[in-house]
Amino acid sequence: MKQLITIIIFLLLPLTSFPQNPEVVIKSIFNNALLDNTAEEHLLYLCKNTKGRIPGSKEALHAVKYTMNALIDAGADSVWLQEVPVPHWERGEERAILRSRLGTHELSISALGLSVGTGPMGINTGLIEVHNFEQLREIGTEGISGKIVFFNRPADNTLINTFSGYAGAVDQRISGASEAAQYGAAGVIVRSPTQATHDFVHTGVVRYMQNIPMIPAVCVSPNDAELLSRFLNNDSESTLHLVSDCKNFPDTISYNVVGEIRGYEKPDEYISVGGHIDAWDISEGAHDDAGGCIQAIETIRIFKELNIIPRRSIRAVMFMNEEMTSTGGQVYADEAEKRGEVHYAALESDRGVMSPIGFGFGNAGDTRLQKLFQLEEYFEPYGIRYFARGGGGSDISPLSRFNTLLIGYIPDTQRYFWFHHSANDTFDQVNIREMQLGSAAIASLIYLVDLFDL
Amino acid sequence: MKQLITIIIFLLLPLTSFPQNPEVVIKSIFNNALLDNTAEEHLLYLCKNTKGRIPGSKEALHAVKYTMNALIDAGADSVWLQEVPVPHWERGEERAILRSRLGTHELSISALGLSVGTGPMGINTGLIEVHNFEQLREIGTEGISGKIVFFNRPADNTLINTFSGYAGAVDQRISGASEAAQYGAAGVIVRSPTQATHDFVHTGVVRYMQNIPMIPAVCVSPNDAELLSRFLNNDSESTLHLVSDCKNFPDTISYNVVGEIRGYEKPDEYISVGGHIDAWDISEGAHDDAGGCIQAIETIRIFKELNIIPRRSIRAVMFMNEEMTSTGGQVYADEAEKRGEVHYAALESDRGVMSPIGFGFGNAGDTRLQKLFQLEEYFEPYGIRYFARGGGGSDISPLSRFNTLLIGYIPDTQRYFWFHHSANDTFDQVNIREMQLGSAAIASLIYLVDLFDL
Repeated sequence: MKQLITIIIFLLLPLTSFPQNPEVVIKSIFNNALLDNTAEEHLLYLCKNTKGRIPGSKEALHAVKYTMNALIDAGADSVWLQEVPVPHWERGEERAILRSRLGTHELSISALGLSVGTGPMGINTGLIEVHNFEQLREIGTEGISGKIVFFNRPADNTLINTFSGYAGAVDQRISGASEAAQYGAAGVIVRSPTQATHDFVHTGVVRYMQNIPMIPAVCVSPNDAELLSRFLNNDSESTLHLVSDCKNFPDTISYNVVGEIRGYEKPDEYISVGGHIDAWDISEGAHDDAGGCIQAIETIRIFKELNIIPRRSIRAVMFMNEEMTSTGGQVYADEAEKRGEVHYAALESDRGVMSPIGFGFGNAGDTRLQKLFQLEEYFEPYGIRYFARGGGGSDISPLSRFNTLLIGYIPDTQRYFWFHHSANDTFDQVNIREMQLGSAAIASLIYLVDLFDL
Repeated sequence: MKQLITIIIFLLLPLTSFPQNPEVVIKSIFNNALLDNTAEEHLLYLCKNTKGRIPGSKEALHAVKYTMNALIDAGADSVWLQEVPVPHWERGEERAILRSRLGTHELSISALGLSVGTGPMGINTGLIEVHNFEQLREIGTEGISGKIVFFNRPADNTLINTFSGYAGAVDQRISGASEAAQYGAAGVIVRSPTQATHDFVHTGVVRYMQNIPMIPAVCVSPNDAELLSRFLNNDSESTLHLVSDCKNFPDTISYNVVGEIRGYEKPDEYISVGGHIDAWDISEGAHDDAGGCIQAIETIRIFKELNIIPRRSIRAVMFMNEEMTSTGGQVYADEAEKRGEVHYAALESDRGVMSPIGFGFGNAGDTRLQKLFQLEEYFEPYGIRYFARGGGGSDISPLSRFNTLLIGYIPDTQRYFWFHHSANDTFDQVNIREMQLGSAAIASLIYLVDLFDL
């Protein structure tokens, strides 16, 4: 108890009332993040009460409202919404029954976001397995027309950077439908882009190319992709009855949420820190990206609670619609341009909320980067050692039109794609201590960038 | 498929048939570890079929037999057992009913290993809460005699090194019973030493001091420790009916399992790599320490599969009885001394199997350490950047009597104490990719230490 009281007294010291040692401020930020449980409450709420928060959904609006209040409670000087045009897509009944000489098997599938549907009766036809778009060209229309194309190239497990493994497989999900439709395919079923071999389906958005027929697109769990491949090897005449009764509706309106602490020296220069508040409907969106939003809210809460008054204005931004058409980030940058705002730096947390490894920095010259790399010394006591070139994220990238330093928060992503876009991305999969080490690292970095004009 | 075939062809090249670039060998080790699924099968088996494997149990013997066969399957040139004297303790019925003015509540408890029991009827008496041994002295016999002492000092969440947080609380579990018994306590109930606030109980061993009465000792979940404290604050006359019908039996015999690849140049020098095969009975012991044992088995399997023929003899050791009285490590070192074996180096993996961070090195002079630190360059592509002074572990520490380099494998332990010694340490809590990055890191380090005479 004595120890706790000492900590509390320490935390109450106003951090701007005397010249501060940055090491001491950073230690107080970490202590606060690790002892406070507001972040855990936020994560539990967003996971359990706003599940299904795809852009255009009422669940997304619920999350907007909740995080707006969370920013007010965190002590933001002002909180507001930005209108964002978003797609409105709804999943329907989904079913995929595989029939072959080996028997009948129901596959675990999930429609890709923005996919057109099959209608309630579905389609019932043969399949052809391919691993890349070149194979489509080799097989040609004769072999593909009327069939469902099964894209089955797995993510490369040997790549140490799991995002590289993902990037090497996700083209099948993003572009597979239009690539196959060029040869008359009736639909596509895509192996989930993940390093995991399990029964979870990992969804994500499909992008249709112009002037090519839009065909239904679903993804299948890695285990069922293996099974489907075995069935097809044994019986190339196997058929799939695929029902994916999803629908696209006219675009609608949703919102970015912004909370701001006014700077005392350069209030018209902004440092933004954010994540995206929308998430895939089949998932609680704990790591992707409730956690990133909460880390942004935590930056506000911690600054206010520790009485860290920033020189520039600090904004926490909950971006809407990262997962489908990324309009939230565009609106945020467009608004900034319209108002002639000076955006000094922006940080995005959208790689999960596992233990922090470091930060990546982009849209900056060598001199600025070299100074930023020297910040590592402040983070070494916290095991955060990776300060590297190349950073950002899809929501802050539209700010690259300005002279804005773009920062990507980098956690240990080795297990990230076990959760990503799947029903496995739940509250239980987040370790609160790991998330809060990230919150503290982010708040500390923002504090240093502002303090030292980096 | 083409890519897979390329990898397979590459893996079949005998690695000693031509001068090898260490970088190439290490890359092949990581590729093999990340693509093979033997380790996952071992983990599943040990978790699901040998749960309850405390020293002296038939489950522990089952795990001995299984890992012996796993080492044979991995291709070890020879596999044998070492007799190890172990305690034989059995958990009995457990129940803790708290009665106070606020009502009645059943606490989640678990007897500490080697604790004496209460007998089937239990004890029913008042409680007194303390946070350290000094408080016991202040309160004295008058206030403690006949009562159950409740040790409730939590682990310090603000310490970045989670093992330091654990170390700052675990004295209550290890020595609390004897400290309290000196003042006539009837028993102790100890807050689980963990940074987590949840309903899992984290057990562990109690050590009784000589010539002090042995009293029953149990631990309680962090959530119920908080609740118990609130009840006592409201009603200091609250009572606890504590039943912990565990029993100590005469010592028995169990085994270390050793599998060896014979070295081709210095076969009589040994490099050991190991974990402990016993685990707490309430847990599957996935992270602690099935994972560490499997990483040792993987070192043998990978060396054999890639045809890496070591200069010295490499031994994978499954140590028995780390958790209770650490006799397995003592027997291993005693045998080595008896046979006059030269133990060049030994590595222990017993901090969980989360993503690798690095290695700690002990029992070595500065010159040797400086050379070891330079190995970091080989691991940098795998995100493994921490090479530090101070390493080892309780099973290999008896080898410190020789001139043996002691190496501790260091994963990211931020979430480790959410699992440690509890029913939450399950197969599902291990990410196989993270475990296998560790297996590859360990096998690579052993290869380099042997190759370069480090």
